[in-house]
Amino acid sequence: MTVSLYTASVPVFQQMLGSLADLLAKSQTHATEKKIEPAALLQSRLFPDMFPLIRQVQIACDFARGVSARLADIEVPKYDDKETSFEELQTLISQTQTFIAGIAPAQFDGGEEREIVTRPGTPKEKRFSGSSYLLSYGLPQFFFHVTTAYALLRHNGVEIGKRDYMGLK
Amino acid sequence: MTVSLYTASVPVFQQMLGSLADLLAKSQTHATEKKIEPAALLQSRLFPDMFPLIRQVQIACDFARGVSARLADIEVPKYDDKETSFEELQTLISQTQTFIAGIAPAQFDGGEEREIVTRPGTPKEKRFSGSSYLLSYGLPQFFFHVTTAYALLRHNGVEIGKRDYMGLK
Repeated sequence: MTVSLYTASVPVFQQMLGSLADLLAKSQTHATEKKIEPAALLQSRLFPDMFPLIRQVQIACDFARGVSARLADIEVPKYDDKETSFEELQTLISQTQTFIAGIAPAQFDGGEEREIVTRPGTPKEKRFSGSSYLLSYGLPQFFFHVTTAYALLRHNGVEIGKRDYMGLK
Repeated sequence: MTVSLYTASVPVFQQMLGSLADLLAKSQTHATEKKIEPAALLQSRLFPDMFPLIRQVQIACDFARGVSARLADIEVPKYDDKETSFEELQTLISQTQTFIAGIAPAQFDGGEEREIVTRPGTPKEKRFSGSSYLLSYGLPQFFFHVTTAYALLRHNGVEIGKRDYMGLK
């Protein structure tokens, strides 16, 4: 019994990107209501050598785009990650949703066996089959950054819950 | 192009449970070396109404067992979640790994279309197909708790990194 690589990736990213957008919208409202400077949340970290919230969101979007594009064998779009506000993060998420929504399930055909090389030519180069790239690398990375964004917001007192993270309507 | 529901679940859980065991082993060593009371880590939370580390690990294991068992249509094993030490958490993870390793891929046959009902008879009851249960519910929940455990340890200064979280050898 099987699922397609498309089903195991794009809809999962869509669900969690929608959740991430909602979490950030609630956080922005929270900041406004409590007179919290947005940067106090956007630049918050769980530890000094961890990435701040803004970067967690950028990386989550980057994985959603990059994993989908590599599995569909199309060019990975380049972004310059210059967001500095909640509004710009919402735009980034929305662009990411639009990009992956534009990939047709048929473009994933053959993706399971396609060799995918991450960080080619570097000491961190890794080679995967498409399915192993998604399941052992892409999804764990993507969920890591979405969950860390959630953890950062919860740690800073934003009133969100697991239900918001799950993004199930 | 497809992957089996087994491939999209059990090996993913195995990878991340191995990572969780390593993260906890490093944390225990860190606590010993720095003369930190183990409970200071085990009972730590990112916010007062979030679950502490010990509970995050228990829930991650619970999802690994429960999702695998429901997809294979076998009884979900009951655990009483009484762990109070790093050693007991390691035993819990190890038992969880053994349980899911004992499920044969063939037992997942038909799981994609099997209706799965979570929290039956409660106001939170939800009905899923097997594949949607895994992809829209089980994996997001499982990764949430593994990542939150990682975030808690990082927040408390344990020297671990993304590489440890990924659990890729």
